[in-house]
Amino acid sequence: MTAPKTLSDQRRALLARRIRLFVAATISYNIIEAIVAISAGTVADSTALIGFGLDSIIEVASAAAVAWQFAGRDPEARPDEQHVAARQQGHEHPVEEAVLADDLGVDAIALGEHHRPEYSISSPETVLAGIATRTSRIKLGSGVTVLSSDDPVRVFQRFSTVDALSNGRAEVILGRGSFTESFPLFGYDLADYDVLFEEKLQLFTRLLDEKPVTWEGTTRAALENADVYPKTESGRLKTWVGVGGSPQSVVRTAYYGLPLMLAIIGGAPDRFAPYLDLYRRAAEQFETTAYPVGMHSPGFIADTDEEAKEIFYAPYKVMRDRIGALRGWPPLKREEFESEILHGSMYVGSPETVARRIAAAIDKLGVGRFDLIYSAGPLPVSARLRAVELYGAKVIPMVRDILAEKEN
Amino acid sequence: MTAPKTLSDQRRALLARRIRLFVAATISYNIIEAIVAISAGTVADSTALIGFGLDSIIEVASAAAVAWQFAGRDPEARPDEQHVAARQQGHEHPVEEAVLADDLGVDAIALGEHHRPEYSISSPETVLAGIATRTSRIKLGSGVTVLSSDDPVRVFQRFSTVDALSNGRAEVILGRGSFTESFPLFGYDLADYDVLFEEKLQLFTRLLDEKPVTWEGTTRAALENADVYPKTESGRLKTWVGVGGSPQSVVRTAYYGLPLMLAIIGGAPDRFAPYLDLYRRAAEQFETTAYPVGMHSPGFIADTDEEAKEIFYAPYKVMRDRIGALRGWPPLKREEFESEILHGSMYVGSPETVARRIAAAIDKLGVGRFDLIYSAGPLPVSARLRAVELYGAKVIPMVRDILAEKEN
Repeated sequence: MTAPKTLSDQRRALLARRIRLFVAATISYNIIEAIVAISAGTVADSTALIGFGLDSIIEVASAAAVAWQFAGRDPEARPDEQHVAARQQGHEHPVEEAVLADDLGVDAIALGEHHRPEYSISSPETVLAGIATRTSRIKLGSGVTVLSSDDPVRVFQRFSTVDALSNGRAEVILGRGSFTESFPLFGYDLADYDVLFEEKLQLFTRLLDEKPVTWEGTTRAALENADVYPKTESGRLKTWVGVGGSPQSVVRTAYYGLPLMLAIIGGAPDRFAPYLDLYRRAAEQFETTAYPVGMHSPGFIADTDEEAKEIFYAPYKVMRDRIGALRGWPPLKREEFESEILHGSMYVGSPETVARRIAAAIDKLGVGRFDLIYSAGPLPVSARLRAVELYGAKVIPMVRDILAEKEN
Repeated sequence: MTAPKTLSDQRRALLARRIRLFVAATISYNIIEAIVAISAGTVADSTALIGFGLDSIIEVASAAAVAWQFAGRDPEARPDEQHVAARQQGHEHPVEEAVLADDLGVDAIALGEHHRPEYSISSPETVLAGIATRTSRIKLGSGVTVLSSDDPVRVFQRFSTVDALSNGRAEVILGRGSFTESFPLFGYDLADYDVLFEEKLQLFTRLLDEKPVTWEGTTRAALENADVYPKTESGRLKTWVGVGGSPQSVVRTAYYGLPLMLAIIGGAPDRFAPYLDLYRRAAEQFETTAYPVGMHSPGFIADTDEEAKEIFYAPYKVMRDRIGALRGWPPLKREEFESEILHGSMYVGSPETVARRIAAAIDKLGVGRFDLIYSAGPLPVSARLRAVELYGAKVIPMVRDILAEKEN
């Protein structure tokens, strides 16, 4: 991590005026986005950008690894006993899979926050704490923490605790979330969607300085010279912003000088190049640091291409169609799935296939990090563990080899 | 744990009317309490009940074990580098000490929630999650979770996650807290002290049923048929209420059919007998289950009485006087300390001394659980680990022997 440039308050105020111009300028980007979405959609059923009004599509992210969701069958359909067993599994998997990934040298893991029956993790940082004391190298992140419906002070406290438990391996990925359940659950109005994230991100960046904070806003009680504990050992908690399809979110991330994690969950990855460019140009304008950008996309690995597709397709379709039904998407067709694997943003196949496609995406976009979203409904435990094993032992070294060769 | 009696809504409404009478009846208890406090105070500097308006004095509890606080020196006095080192230690201790306690068969551990520079733990359940995956038998509790300034839904989510990570060993101890810092930090008014706890405890008990909840109150957004995840494997998260000196809190705990944890941190333990009696009588009236009561008191163990006192006194006095200064207490005198060890609620000494005194307290009060609050400022790591070792390996077996002999 490059040391962040620090700004005086005065300088920051000056720069703050520029953001308005920038946001105005990004309106044209929104139009481009819509066009890209539609055309990509016809080619490859771009789930990233079709017909959903909320920004971040980051659901269950995972950092160069793994994310989990409820490992059982349809909760309505299954008898109580199995439900109970599945519940517990929902938490055992992540810890065991993280331990394996750590052993194999996978760089990072991220867990999403959800408040729906399909997912077992509503408090990712609590699970990360459980992983922290069983691992030694792997970075521990959320993907994303739905900051809009949480309290920045509590989020900071929990992640700085994970940071202490892991000797500095915690990283929070803040986002607006792609689901809306957390809003009524925690008493927020979806009408305040923008102001909630804007204000809470502002407060969170203040907390990152780890000094007494004085802050006032409309979405949370004011703070006066409030000191928040525990502090981190490094003095700064690693913090990303997770962004789906909104240029404003990209600009805002640059404004606060935070690293950007792009959710690319459908269509050709190249079409996200303008977002990386926008992030860099915005950081230049605001005189903040443009960090290497991260991307995350879904996928699955097995010993052969055919096996990976056979294991992954049915559970993925169940989950995709259930969520799609809520969002007005048509059911997933097998052709779309195959097309997304060939040309889009789904990294499914043998280690060789997946490594080749990840390396190409990294190379094309010039990202600094790739996270494989590795979760799709009720996957068998053995297949999940095998996928983590292949990812750590084969895919990651292959990707590095391919990229090193290209550089020479 | 005895299966809780379940009540119909109608029956509950009928019983709810009785609580008013009960609370009225407890006014006399308040007077008795004040008298006891004063007389105990003159004899043994009863820190439990002198001059502090808030209810629960439970600060950093610990279940048949151990609680931790910031292991560094005065934060204002120490240079930055040491501060950093101490920060990290603050979290390493609890995990290592919990692993040792688990190995030795200590039954439970509880960590307090604090938002002050002296303490490193502001999110006990995050640390408990880190302990969960490194231990196999020990129960994992908070002591207390300051429910008044937190969100019952989030508290439930985090503890049910700890429950999943630990195969059912989580237990939350809810309380009002003895410090007030969390109120401004999370935007609550101390004037709402009573209604905050009352309403949030009510909502929390509804969440314990693990069914969709419809709830409305004044201190948190309403819920309509809201389902909260993850559910626990057992179907019920173990939940206590931690109480300091308030009879109303005892009655409320009985009303909700929850087990009671009494903070007895000064004076002769016998004077809490009326609270146990009140709890049992209230439970009878409300037709709820009167569970075995828990008590917690401070202490420390070393190889000899003298060594225990020498290690414990200075750091304890630093912490006690710093907190005392905020509450108008006079500085602690050595005679008071010695007297509290001989006749009061401080369990300091050799394993034999501490075991004898704990057994006597358990026997006199008829409690079902004893928690030693084992923390006092900057204690050396080696002394802390030795205390845990002596507690698990010697004190607990000795207490059980003494109690078994008395029964025969």
